[in-house]
Amino acid sequence: MTSMHIDILRSGEGKEGEYEVVEREHLPRWGQDTVLTVVGKPHPRVEGEEKVTGRARYSYDMHLPGMLYAKVLRCPHPHARIKRIDTTQAEALFGVRAVLSSANAPEIEWFKDSLLFDTTLRYVGEEVAAVAADSEDIARDALRLVDVEYEVLPFVTDFTRALEPDAPRLRPDSKEGRHGNLQDDPQVSERGDVEAGFREAEVIVDEVFTTQTALHNCMEPHGCVASWEGDQLTMWESTQSIFDVRQEVAEKLKLPEHRVRVIKQYMGGGFGSKQIAWKHTVIAALLSKGSSRPVQLMLDREAENLAAGNRNPTRQHVRLGARRDGTITALSVKIEQSVGAHMVGGEGSNTPGLYQRLYKIPNLRTEQLPIYANTGPAVAFRAPGYVEAAFALEQSMDMLARELGMDPLDLRLKNYAESDQKRDKPYTTPQSLRLCYEKASEAFGWRDYRKPPASGSKRRGIGMAAHEWGGSGYPPGYAWVKLNADGTADVVTGTQDIGTGTRTALSQVAAEELGLPMEQVRLHLGDTGQGPYAPVSSGSATQATIGPAIRDAADAAKRQLLQAAGTYLEVDPLRLRVQDGAIFIEGEADHAATVAEVTQRIAPHMIQGHGVRGPNPTDKSVRTFGAQFVEVEVDTETGEVTVQRVVASHDCGKIVNPTMVDSQVIGAVTQGIGFALFEERVVDHSRGVVLNANLEEYKVPTVLDVPPIEHVRVDLADPEANVSGSKGIGEPPLVPTAPAIASAVYDAVGIRIKDGPISRHKLIELLAAQQEVGR
Amino acid sequence: MTSMHIDILRSGEGKEGEYEVVEREHLPRWGQDTVLTVVGKPHPRVEGEEKVTGRARYSYDMHLPGMLYAKVLRCPHPHARIKRIDTTQAEALFGVRAVLSSANAPEIEWFKDSLLFDTTLRYVGEEVAAVAADSEDIARDALRLVDVEYEVLPFVTDFTRALEPDAPRLRPDSKEGRHGNLQDDPQVSERGDVEAGFREAEVIVDEVFTTQTALHNCMEPHGCVASWEGDQLTMWESTQSIFDVRQEVAEKLKLPEHRVRVIKQYMGGGFGSKQIAWKHTVIAALLSKGSSRPVQLMLDREAENLAAGNRNPTRQHVRLGARRDGTITALSVKIEQSVGAHMVGGEGSNTPGLYQRLYKIPNLRTEQLPIYANTGPAVAFRAPGYVEAAFALEQSMDMLARELGMDPLDLRLKNYAESDQKRDKPYTTPQSLRLCYEKASEAFGWRDYRKPPASGSKRRGIGMAAHEWGGSGYPPGYAWVKLNADGTADVVTGTQDIGTGTRTALSQVAAEELGLPMEQVRLHLGDTGQGPYAPVSSGSATQATIGPAIRDAADAAKRQLLQAAGTYLEVDPLRLRVQDGAIFIEGEADHAATVAEVTQRIAPHMIQGHGVRGPNPTDKSVRTFGAQFVEVEVDTETGEVTVQRVVASHDCGKIVNPTMVDSQVIGAVTQGIGFALFEERVVDHSRGVVLNANLEEYKVPTVLDVPPIEHVRVDLADPEANVSGSKGIGEPPLVPTAPAIASAVYDAVGIRIKDGPISRHKLIELLAAQQEVGR
Repeated sequence: MTSMHIDILRSGEGKEGEYEVVEREHLPRWGQDTVLTVVGKPHPRVEGEEKVTGRARYSYDMHLPGMLYAKVLRCPHPHARIKRIDTTQAEALFGVRAVLSSANAPEIEWFKDSLLFDTTLRYVGEEVAAVAADSEDIARDALRLVDVEYEVLPFVTDFTRALEPDAPRLRPDSKEGRHGNLQDDPQVSERGDVEAGFREAEVIVDEVFTTQTALHNCMEPHGCVASWEGDQLTMWESTQSIFDVRQEVAEKLKLPEHRVRVIKQYMGGGFGSKQIAWKHTVIAALLSKGSSRPVQLMLDREAENLAAGNRNPTRQHVRLGARRDGTITALSVKIEQSVGAHMVGGEGSNTPGLYQRLYKIPNLRTEQLPIYANTGPAVAFRAPGYVEAAFALEQSMDMLARELGMDPLDLRLKNYAESDQKRDKPYTTPQSLRLCYEKASEAFGWRDYRKPPASGSKRRGIGMAAHEWGGSGYPPGYAWVKLNADGTADVVTGTQDIGTGTRTALSQVAAEELGLPMEQVRLHLGDTGQGPYAPVSSGSATQATIGPAIRDAADAAKRQLLQAAGTYLEVDPLRLRVQDGAIFIEGEADHAATVAEVTQRIAPHMIQGHGVRGPNPTDKSVRTFGAQFVEVEVDTETGEVTVQRVVASHDCGKIVNPTMVDSQVIGAVTQGIGFALFEERVVDHSRGVVLNANLEEYKVPTVLDVPPIEHVRVDLADPEANVSGSKGIGEPPLVPTAPAIASAVYDAVGIRIKDGPISRHKLIELLAAQQEVGR
Repeated sequence: MTSMHIDILRSGEGKEGEYEVVEREHLPRWGQDTVLTVVGKPHPRVEGEEKVTGRARYSYDMHLPGMLYAKVLRCPHPHARIKRIDTTQAEALFGVRAVLSSANAPEIEWFKDSLLFDTTLRYVGEEVAAVAADSEDIARDALRLVDVEYEVLPFVTDFTRALEPDAPRLRPDSKEGRHGNLQDDPQVSERGDVEAGFREAEVIVDEVFTTQTALHNCMEPHGCVASWEGDQLTMWESTQSIFDVRQEVAEKLKLPEHRVRVIKQYMGGGFGSKQIAWKHTVIAALLSKGSSRPVQLMLDREAENLAAGNRNPTRQHVRLGARRDGTITALSVKIEQSVGAHMVGGEGSNTPGLYQRLYKIPNLRTEQLPIYANTGPAVAFRAPGYVEAAFALEQSMDMLARELGMDPLDLRLKNYAESDQKRDKPYTTPQSLRLCYEKASEAFGWRDYRKPPASGSKRRGIGMAAHEWGGSGYPPGYAWVKLNADGTADVVTGTQDIGTGTRTALSQVAAEELGLPMEQVRLHLGDTGQGPYAPVSSGSATQATIGPAIRDAADAAKRQLLQAAGTYLEVDPLRLRVQDGAIFIEGEADHAATVAEVTQRIAPHMIQGHGVRGPNPTDKSVRTFGAQFVEVEVDTETGEVTVQRVVASHDCGKIVNPTMVDSQVIGAVTQGIGFALFEERVVDHSRGVVLNANLEEYKVPTVLDVPPIEHVRVDLADPEANVSGSKGIGEPPLVPTAPAIASAVYDAVGIRIKDGPISRHKLIELLAAQQEVGR
């Protein structure tokens, strides 16, 4: 990374014209041996008090004077055409201020080939009309007064049937004869000679797995408040990417970007579905423009679960070949996955990725088919593709190990990938995954595990799975640091804290580099008007993208501070260091001045640091890794699976805040338990209707479902990754949980569930069938 | 100025690791010959539409959920001690959420020697208690329920009597015997040999002038909305200095600065009184803390006019000596001026300044005495000190000219100062004032003026006056420029637009340097959380302080843009320029690409420029100058003075926006007419009460009082001042108006009004006396 700033510093208070130049040098990278005092500590969330006292204001809490409330009318049919729509009665209702529908809305292109308000509707929940009114009740009443005449069309909601020749089409077949429900040509990737590989194989696992549609269910649903001042639009949006929302809203409304400001201070979770701008955002902006009033449009849980994305269901046909000694010779997988009714962006989840990298496999073929169906659009969901892939690949590995009579861990070590096989580059930390295997298996007691004897109908079993993932971060990332007159610092970024603790962990990086206690640092984020550009908070990239930029900016400020301190103390700045808010002279135990003294007397408001995030290495691959070991108990009478414990070890480079990292691991494993055992959007394919677009019937894990989750930290600073040596942790711990549980269930009762989730009704049927066979 | 940044640029879309370095060179200064396309044009206010449609939100328009309204109980006595205060009944009133008084408020030091809620009260209007309630009405009712027992103390409201030995004291005499009402030791400044100078003089003018207390009367009164989130305080404050308010509020509340955020987006005027934090700001913050609710505290007109500052009244004893040929040999002045009941900061107006610089005077003595009196505190008011000084000095010059039989303009040219006599340095533009004299006198027709014959009771007369002033701007000033993906730019600063058009004029500087049309630039200001530090908007300094920083930042961004364009077009960047949103190749008439193309394809969000304002020259003095010529008509029967026309010429360096500059000149001259003829805070000295703390009886000029005001522009870029060659215009045009009118009145009717304002009742009495004498 080439980063050099020459900054200005006023050396004498009030004296004009006396400036000195401070030249910044290359920033030393944080590695394993670097001694850090703030980074690495479990600092509690800086916004914790605001959150637990209810003072933190989410989009839903924004109330502007004269604000209206908006509601959206949604299509009740899986496939239909609007023949006629009449909003006259709705418009006439007292308190209704604006109504939008295909009859009057501007023709704004949406998704790949649709309109904001289209007359062709392709799933239950698609937007038909929207109303802004003085209250939510009036808006709801007004929706009932919208008169729509639909022509109901044939539909297909089961994607595994969508490519059948006679399936109803969501879009017409292409001129070249491609099936209208095939969203794109199959994506094929191949290396080595797969057929030869399989010929070499002595054992072949050949299985079909399916994974279900899961729903994001962020605690805070999607939604925003839109407000115009003249031609300036401000949006308080629940989003993982204020800058992307800005850009997309600007494009859709044909506004220059600088007229749109997107703000997100607090957020109740974002798992991928909030990484793009959805229709509600632009609808709110249009309703606000039309009514000349601020408009709040929050999705309710049903709308959220019908129309704001989901994890795409997959069908994966895996063939895995190996020699008797466990050496994998070939792998092929054909992945069919549904994008739902629309191609959103991000929903073409990279399911082949895990196959391509996790094990050393010389001969490999992956094929991925994205398929339309009359269901809500899919969108990225925490480790998109990888969670689905792991369910199939890691169970296949378990089956292979059992076939070979090998310990599943040994099979994995046998096929350990020391380098990135997709990019054909060495990893910056090739030892990572091995370390995760070692630490987690040891803490779990994998090698010495002795299955307890059956207790009544209850059987114990264990399983494991691994993952690799990105999380390297990437440029562009920027940060600005301002040292105030009283020695406190404002750190300005354009990123967002989606609930992961970004505000806290990035503050720690700033405090560490500036030599200030945490209390003297305030991080600003979540405002496109305020901070420099930052990319979307996704791909587990935030800490590794913005952290280095903050270090760079803080370093620039620190050098100016030391220069000023040198002037103040009449000491060569090179003999000075700053720590815990004080300036120390080389070799002296007591501090010579406080930072506040220096800023007040020498450089009030004068010190401003600007930082950038450098590029990733080009000759190596930066990845994250992890492994999980689980123990389950299966009740053979009820089919109930109870996860007893999970031991997880994940490498995310330098751990900035162990509490935050633990919390990501615990949260992801919890979500993984839900994905493994209960979470499934259920569609009645005969009617094309989602049966459980709520939280009553769509089951997410509760505290009673969550066992002790032990996170065995790795904390392996990766100085080749970036200057702060950190990588992401947000998504990866979700990847291995479900297959580890599935293999543990097999270990317990000898039943292999290849169709997620491992629900009680499936298991009890299979247990019954097993008993039937056994009898 | 040493400013050099080396910034990073990604040269290929999506390619990792390919960065090129762009080195910035010294920024060429804008001078007389520089061709500019956006700067210098009369661009309308960018926020004009928001303002005229009422959509612009001022502090008063901020309505937060659950917001309370606060009112302040004010002392009815000019001097009193609180013996007992009981707020029980007020607290018990339904809807009252918080009450503050000396009985329960924290002991926060205020002004130099007082408390936020003191038990000693020194003027009518001083703060006694404050209430926050659900509505303004309830708050007002609650104030009536506060039970206060005062001990009424002796007082003095006439500052000219305050130093008498037996005058009631606001503070005790010092140990050294200094009168308690003398706020500080007299400030004496002397050069040359004054006594010798007077001995040399052949003519001496020896006169005493007084100037009245004037009230700022911004359209928007002082006030704020305070809101806490946890330990973070946000204030929407009507202020000329968001950063100073932040610092002062932080100090008063013992908060670190980074926990306080001050926002000011729109402002209905600030003439100096809004350059500091007043009590209401901290009171609002405390009431908000106490009630856990946002609190709005806006001053009403009466509170505004009693307790939020005023222009200090003065008594100036001038002695001006000259030789018969007009050469001034000596000047001495003793200035007594009142600071009111408290020393606020800024109210020790620099009245001697104009005496020290405006003319070439070898022997000079100035003495200034700041005096306490039981009236509301004085504070800086548009060209503080200079307006008062000009009334005396410029009339003295007129009297001297008449005594010598010289044209007042010739007398001024005779004593023209080519250099800064106070700092003993040459001016960067020594020709400035001469140019103003020439341009304005010519446009006015001064030399050829023929007084029209008296028409009935009406007499015409003309007068002139000059000024010099600062307005050079100064560091620190910072700016950040972000180029968006669509080629628009966000320019982030920490300054504020106090109604002068800063947003527009600074946008022009950014657009000019970036080569973008105005529509592609958005300037952000008015938020301490958002922008880099900027100093107070006072001293006519904003354009000259922030403009250069914006140029610097924009230049940094432009160089990166050209580098990116070079990559895109495969052309050496040195052969490229950007203008009006497009990239041009040297020697080609048509543009080769748009800026949007380059930003989108090569560097989306990658271009960020950081700029600083360099120091002022050390070897020269940067000042502004101007002259005004007026014609009046005096009705000898009614004493009414009607200003017929004003011709003004003012040098503010490079004119960025002629409309904005004209508007400053017109506004200041209008205020000058008010100061000359009507504006006066009237105190009943027997009761110590202000009689006209409102806009019904305190007369400001209306549109009927304002004659044609011609601004003859100078537009003399001053490249030695700073990189954009601009200087300030906000204050100076107010300086010469009143004395020019006074001299014109003398010219019309031979009556010299030495006690401002030139009210009808004064004039009619003097006209009667004149007739008496004449009879």
